[in-house]
Amino acid sequence: MIHTGRHFLQIPGPTNVPDRVLRAMDRPVIDHRGPEFAILGKEILAGMAAIFATSSPVIIYTSSGTGACEASLANTLSPGDRVLIFETGHFSAIWRQIGERLGLAVTYIPGDWRRGASAAEAEARLRADSSHVFKAVVVVHNETSTGVTSKIAELRRVMNQLGHPALLIVDAISSLASIDYRHDEWRVDVMVCGSQKGLMLPPGIGLNVVSAKALEASKRSRFPRSYFDWASIIAANAQGFFPYTPPTLMMFGLREALALLREEGLENVFARHARLAEATRCAVVAWGLEILATDPRERSNTLTAIVVPEGVDADVIRTTILERFDMSLGVGLGKLKGRVFRIGHLGSFNELMLAATLCGVQMGLRLCDVPIGDGVGAALEFLTAPKSGAAQRAPALV
Amino acid sequence: MIHTGRHFLQIPGPTNVPDRVLRAMDRPVIDHRGPEFAILGKEILAGMAAIFATSSPVIIYTSSGTGACEASLANTLSPGDRVLIFETGHFSAIWRQIGERLGLAVTYIPGDWRRGASAAEAEARLRADSSHVFKAVVVVHNETSTGVTSKIAELRRVMNQLGHPALLIVDAISSLASIDYRHDEWRVDVMVCGSQKGLMLPPGIGLNVVSAKALEASKRSRFPRSYFDWASIIAANAQGFFPYTPPTLMMFGLREALALLREEGLENVFARHARLAEATRCAVVAWGLEILATDPRERSNTLTAIVVPEGVDADVIRTTILERFDMSLGVGLGKLKGRVFRIGHLGSFNELMLAATLCGVQMGLRLCDVPIGDGVGAALEFLTAPKSGAAQRAPALV
Amino acid sequence: MIHTGRHFLQIPGPTNVPDRVLRAMDRPVIDHRGPEFAILGKEILAGMAAIFATSSPVIIYTSSGTGACEASLANTLSPGDRVLIFETGHFSAIWRQIGERLGLAVTYIPGDWRRGASAAEAEARLRADSSHVFKAVVVVHNETSTGVTSKIAELRRVMNQLGHPALLIVDAISSLASIDYRHDEWRVDVMVCGSQKGLMLPPGIGLNVVSAKALEASKRSRFPRSYFDWASIIAANAQGFFPYTPPTLMMFGLREALALLREEGLENVFARHARLAEATRCAVVAWGLEILATDPRERSNTLTAIVVPEGVDADVIRTTILERFDMSLGVGLGKLKGRVFRIGHLGSFNELMLAATLCGVQMGLRLCDVPIGDGVGAALEFLTAPKSGAAQRAPALV
Amino acid sequence: MIHTGRHFLQIPGPTNVPDRVLRAMDRPVIDHRGPEFAILGKEILAGMAAIFATSSPVIIYTSSGTGACEASLANTLSPGDRVLIFETGHFSAIWRQIGERLGLAVTYIPGDWRRGASAAEAEARLRADSSHVFKAVVVVHNETSTGVTSKIAELRRVMNQLGHPALLIVDAISSLASIDYRHDEWRVDVMVCGSQKGLMLPPGIGLNVVSAKALEASKRSRFPRSYFDWASIIAANAQGFFPYTPPTLMMFGLREALALLREEGLENVFARHARLAEATRCAVVAWGLEILATDPRERSNTLTAIVVPEGVDADVIRTTILERFDMSLGVGLGKLKGRVFRIGHLGSFNELMLAATLCGVQMGLRLCDVPIGDGVGAALEFLTAPKSGAAQRAPALV
Repeated sequence: MIHTGRHFLQIPGPTNVPDRVLRAMDRPVIDHRGPEFAILGKEILAGMAAIFATSSPVIIYTSSGTGACEASLANTLSPGDRVLIFETGHFSAIWRQIGERLGLAVTYIPGDWRRGASAAEAEARLRADSSHVFKAVVVVHNETSTGVTSKIAELRRVMNQLGHPALLIVDAISSLASIDYRHDEWRVDVMVCGSQKGLMLPPGIGLNVVSAKALEASKRSRFPRSYFDWASIIAANAQGFFPYTPPTLMMFGLREALALLREEGLENVFARHARLAEATRCAVVAWGLEILATDPRERSNTLTAIVVPEGVDADVIRTTILERFDMSLGVGLGKLKGRVFRIGHLGSFNELMLAATLCGVQMGLRLCDVPIGDGVGAALEFLTAPKSGAAQRAPALV
Repeated sequence: MIHTGRHFLQIPGPTNVPDRVLRAMDRPVIDHRGPEFAILGKEILAGMAAIFATSSPVIIYTSSGTGACEASLANTLSPGDRVLIFETGHFSAIWRQIGERLGLAVTYIPGDWRRGASAAEAEARLRADSSHVFKAVVVVHNETSTGVTSKIAELRRVMNQLGHPALLIVDAISSLASIDYRHDEWRVDVMVCGSQKGLMLPPGIGLNVVSAKALEASKRSRFPRSYFDWASIIAANAQGFFPYTPPTLMMFGLREALALLREEGLENVFARHARLAEATRCAVVAWGLEILATDPRERSNTLTAIVVPEGVDADVIRTTILERFDMSLGVGLGKLKGRVFRIGHLGSFNELMLAATLCGVQMGLRLCDVPIGDGVGAALEFLTAPKSGAAQRAPALV
Repeated sequence: MIHTGRHFLQIPGPTNVPDRVLRAMDRPVIDHRGPEFAILGKEILAGMAAIFATSSPVIIYTSSGTGACEASLANTLSPGDRVLIFETGHFSAIWRQIGERLGLAVTYIPGDWRRGASAAEAEARLRADSSHVFKAVVVVHNETSTGVTSKIAELRRVMNQLGHPALLIVDAISSLASIDYRHDEWRVDVMVCGSQKGLMLPPGIGLNVVSAKALEASKRSRFPRSYFDWASIIAANAQGFFPYTPPTLMMFGLREALALLREEGLENVFARHARLAEATRCAVVAWGLEILATDPRERSNTLTAIVVPEGVDADVIRTTILERFDMSLGVGLGKLKGRVFRIGHLGSFNELMLAATLCGVQMGLRLCDVPIGDGVGAALEFLTAPKSGAAQRAPALV
Repeated sequence: MIHTGRHFLQIPGPTNVPDRVLRAMDRPVIDHRGPEFAILGKEILAGMAAIFATSSPVIIYTSSGTGACEASLANTLSPGDRVLIFETGHFSAIWRQIGERLGLAVTYIPGDWRRGASAAEAEARLRADSSHVFKAVVVVHNETSTGVTSKIAELRRVMNQLGHPALLIVDAISSLASIDYRHDEWRVDVMVCGSQKGLMLPPGIGLNVVSAKALEASKRSRFPRSYFDWASIIAANAQGFFPYTPPTLMMFGLREALALLREEGLENVFARHARLAEATRCAVVAWGLEILATDPRERSNTLTAIVVPEGVDADVIRTTILERFDMSLGVGLGKLKGRVFRIGHLGSFNELMLAATLCGVQMGLRLCDVPIGDGVGAALEFLTAPKSGAAQRAPALV
C-alpha cells in the first residue's frame, strides 16, 4: 500500500505522537546510573505528580497498560482475595481475566457494555458486604471498547458513605490527561495508566499512582512479585533512579509530553477534548447513527463507539476507510465485533484533524451504502457556533 | 500560540515534507569528496533524469528556486539580449525583475493574472520578429500566485511552426512532479525548479534541466557568472561530485523523495493531483466563490486561488483560519493582496488532508461571515462518486 | 555540563543506538491491530529466530531484562520449587532475589565474582540430586557486573551426562548478538535477554526464547501470572499480533537492528566483538592493571571489568573521566563498588570508538595519579598487527 | 561497506552536525511568510550579530560558501575593477577563479601554500598603488587546503597606515565560530562564511557580514546581479522575512547551533579549538612528520595539513584509513594532491573524538609502513598536562 501524505491514526490509542515528543526520543541513550539521568528522573516524577495533582508516588514501569493493571492487584492483594469488578466492556473483561489468572476471587457485576459502572449496584454489593470480604473495587474510568465514562466520584461517595475499606482501583488508561481525573480528591488508591493515550507517547510505559492506603496494603500483600513490586521502585526513585534499566528514550519523551501538557494547561486540555468529542457526537447524530453509550452524561470525551445499522458489518466499513482513505479506526472488541467501530479523538489532536476524521468516516459510510445524513456539516456548525465556546467547559462527571 | 496536533501547511509550497524524507535527512553528513557520496550523487542524477523522462543534464544548485531562475538566464544569454516574458502573475513579475536586474531587455506581454500565457500573442510577437531579436521565451508553467497553468506544448508548437530559434525557458517550480510536464517531448530548453513543491523536500535546492541547444548557447553567453555556471557542475557531476560543497543532507532527502515518486508512479502522482484539485474546485463552486483562473482548462492541479467577495479582506480570512485552526493558506501576492487566498493541494497530500483543509476554509469563511454554501459536502461527494475514478486521469494540457 | 561533540556511552549497556535504528523509531505509531502491523510482527519474529538460529518461539515483552528474568521463572516453575543458581556476580544475585521473591527455594552456589559458573560444582550438585529436586538451573551467560563469560555448553554436557531433567535457564542479556550463543545446539530451555545490549536498541524490550520442554513445563506451572504468560503471547503472535499493545516504535527499531546484524553477518559480529575485547585486554595488561576475570578463557568479549590498585577509588576515576572527557563507564556493582570500573565494548562499536574509549581511560587514570603503562599503544599495536586478523575468529567458549 | 558504530568525519568541514541541531531540523516546514517565521528570522539575525560581535547586517543565502564568495564581489565591485588576492592555497585560487570569471582584474600575490598572507607584501603593493587602483583586498582567514591562518589584524593595520580605501574582504569559512575573528574591531568590509564548519550545520547556507562601507560600495557596484543582491535581502530581513523562500529547516538548525555556541561561550569555543589543535600538533611532531604550515604562529586551530614523507602517497593513507577504520580525512587539494592529508579538528568536537582521530591516523600510517613515533601518546600527554590548561587560551593572531 502506497501511503501518500499522512496516515490518520484515529484508533482510541495509541494516539498520534507529537513531533516534539518524537524528536525528544530521537537521541542518544544516556547512562541510567549517571548524574544526568538522576536529574531527568526526578524532573519527570515531580512533573507527573504536578500534572496529575497528586502527592502520591507515581510508579513508572517498562510495560504495557496491562502490566500496570496486574501491578495494581499484585501489590495490594493476596491470592484468594475477593475483588469487585464492574463489567463495562472488553477491558473490564481483561481485568477480570487478570484477576482470575492471579488467583483472585472476582465478583463481576454484569453490565450491558453501554453504561458505566453503576453506583447503585456498588452500593447494594458493598452494603451487603458487612464483613468486608471485598478487598478492592476495580473500575475502568473510561472504557476504551465502548466509549463510556464511569463516574468515579459517585462510586467513591458510596464507598465513603458505607465506610467500606476496600481499595478503589481505577483504570484511567484512556482518560488520563484527557478527561478530568482527580486522584487525591477522589481518594483513588491505585490509578492505572499507560503512555500511549493522553500522554501522547508511543506505547512502552505503564503507570501506577499509589495512595498511602494502597502502599500500606502492599506491605501485607502476599502475592509473589518482583518486577512489579512498588517498594524497590519507590526506594530507587528517591534519587531519580530505577531498580532496573528504565526505558531511557521514553523518559525523554515523557519529559517533553509533560511540557506540552503544562504549556497548554490541563484545564484547556480537558476542554479541548470535551469540545472535539461533542463535535463528534453532533456528527453521529446527524448521520442518524447510534452512539453506543446510551447515557449522554457518560459519553466519553476521548473516543466514540458508533453502532452500525443491522445488516452492516462495521469491519467492512473500517477496511474500506483504511484502504481508500488511509485512516485507522478502532475495531469492535469482544462481543462488539462487527457491530461498532470506534473513533479515537484524544491526545495530540485538533479541529482539522477531527474534521478530516469525520470526513473519512462519512465518505466510508457512503461508499458502503449506509444511508446517512451530513454529519460533517453538523460538526463544522458546532465548531463554529458562538455557543461552542461555552461547551468547551465540560462538566466534570462527579 | 499553542500547537495541539498537527499544523496544516496548505500554502502552495513549501509543501509538507513526508516523514520518510525528513528521516532520510536526519543523519550524519558524509564526505562530499568520498566514494559513498559519489554513489549517492550518481544515483540522484540518474533518478532525476528517469523521473522527469529526460536525457538532458539536471543541474542541482544550493539555492532557492529564484536562484535557478537567474541561472537559466545567466547561462544562456548575454547582457542586452531581448527576452519575451509572459505576464501571468507575481512570479512572472519576478522573472521580469531578474531579467532587468541582469541587464536583459524584457518584452513583457501583458496579462490579467487570470489566464495563462497566450499562444496567439506569442505567435504574433514571434512572427513579427523575423530578425530573431528574441533570444528566449520565458513562461511560468504553473503560476503559483494565481493557480493558472499555461499550455507549454501549444507555445512550443507556435515556436516550431515559425521556426523561431529563441530558447524556451519554463518555470516548473510549482508544477514539477505534480502536473504532467514533458521536458524532452516539449523541447524545453531550460526547466527551472526547486525542491520544496512536488519534490516534497524542504526549500534549499534549485534545479535546471538543460537541453543540448541551451548548453550550446551557454558557450556563447557573455554574462559574468561563476556560482551558477553549468559547465563546471556538469563536469564534476560525471563522477557524482559537485564543484562546491553540495547540500549533503538535502541530497539524502532527494534520494528518498525520488524513491517515493517512483513507488507511487508518476502517472498516479499526476492523477492524484488532478483528482484532489477537482475536489477543491467542486468545493469552491459550491461555496459560491470565484476561482481566480477563468479558463477551466487552465485551472491548476497544484493550487487554487479563490477570489473573496467585494468588501471582504482575504487576509482577515487567512489570519482567522491560522489562529483558530492552525492552518496556513497562501497569501494574495502583489496586486492580489487581500483579494484572494490560495489553497495549496500538492506534494505529499491525500483525500483526508484535503478534507481537513476544505473544512478549515469553510469554517473560517463562516466565522468571517462570508455567505457560502456547503463546499465540503460537494468535495466529499465528488471524492466518493463512481465517476471520480475517471477524473483521476487528467487530460494533459497540450 | 556542556556537551561538545559526542558523549561516549561506554557502560556495558545500554549501548550506543545506531542512527539507523533511531531513525527507524522516529516515525508515526501505527495501529497495532491493523494489517501493516501484522506484517511487521511476523517479520520480526521470523528475523529473531533466524538471527538466533533457533526454531523455538521468541517472546517479546514490553519490559526490562529483569522482567524477562521473572518471566522465565514464573512460566516454568511453581511456588516452592528448588532452583540452582550460580553466584557469578551482581546479576546472579538479582536472579536469586527474584527467585526468592517469587517464593522459589534457591540453592545459590557460591562464587568469587571472578570466575564463571563451575561445571564441576554443577556436576556435584546435580549428581547428588538423584530425586530431581532441582527443577531449574539458572546461569548468567555473561556476567555484566564482572566481565566473566560462563561456559554454557559445558554445563549442558554435565546435565546431559547425568540425565538430569532440570530446565536450563540462561541469562544472555549482555551476550546475545555479541558473543557466540547457540540456543538449539546447547539445548537451552529459556533464554533471557533485553533490547539494549547487542541488539543495539534502547531499553524497553525483554525477551525469552523458549524450548519445547520449557513450553511443556509452562503448562504445569502453578505460578499466578498474567502479563508474562507465554501462552497468550504465542497464540497472538501466530497472526503477527500481541495480546497487549506492543511497543510499536521499538518494533520498528528492532526490525532495523535485525537488518543491521544480518548485513554484517552474525559471525562477523562475534569476531568484531572478540577483536575489540582482545584489544581492550591488551591495554589493561599494558597499563599494569588487573582484569577482574581471572581465567583468560572466561574473559568477556562485551565488557571488561578492571580492578583498580589498592587505595584508589574506582568511582573517583569514573567521575573524573565523565567530567573531563564526557565518557560514561560502568560502575562497580554490589561488593565491587569502588574496586572496579567496567568498560563496555559491545553493540554498535568499532576500532576508533574503542581507541577513544581507551584514550579516555588512560588519561583519566593519569589524572588520578594511578601509575600505568601505555595501554593505548598496546591496543593500537594489536589492532594493526598482522596476526590480529587471526584473532578475529574467537574460539567459542564450549 | 558495512558501517558498524560511528563514522568519523574528520575532514575540515562539513563537520559533524550535533544531534541537537539535527533534531531541530527534523520537523515540519512552516510558512515562510507567516508570523512564526518572522519571529524565527529575527531571532536568528539578532543571534548571528551577537555571536559574531558585529552591528553590521548579516546576509543569509541559500548557497554554498562559494556562492557567498561570489556575492561579496558582485555586490561591491564592478566589471574590470582590480582586486588584490593573496595566494594562500586552493581556496585562494578559487577566489581568483571567481574574480576572473566575473570579469575582475586580479592581482594574485604569489605564495608557497605554507604561509599566510604577507602583510609586508600587502604594504608594498598598496603603497605603490597611490591612485587607488585596487578596489578590494581579498584574503582567506584560514586556508582550508593548507591549515594556515592569516593575520587579518596586521593586514588591516597596514591598510589603515597607508589610508588605502580598498575594501577588505575576508573568507572566514573555516575559521568562523572556531578561531577568534573580530569583524568590527578589524574593520572587515565583507566577511564570507558557510554553515558547515564552525556553525556545525550541514552545508546549505552561505553568509556575508557587511560593513557600512561595503554597503555604500554596493550602491555604486555595476555588476548585474539579482539572487545575491544584498539590498532586497536586507529590506525583507527587517520584518524577519526573506525575498525568496529561505531554507526553512536549516534556519531551525541555525537557531539551535547559535544556542549551542551561546551555551558554551564563544571564548570557550575558541579555547577548545586551540587546545585540540595544539594536541594534534603535538601528535604530528611526535610522529616525526611535517606540518605543512611552516610558521608556528600561523598554524590553524581548525585543521592540520600533514606532509607525508617522500615516496608515500597521502591518498593511499587516506584510503587505508577510510577502509580500515571508517574515518574520512581531508584530501590534498590542487598541487598538494598526494602530498598531504588534512585532519579537521573543528566544530562539534572534543578530546575523545580527537583521540580516536589521532589513533586512526597513527594506525593508518603504520599499516602503510610509514615509520613514525607515538603521536597519540604525545597528544594524550598534552591533554592531561597541568600546563595545558594555560594553552587553552590561544593568543589571538593579531
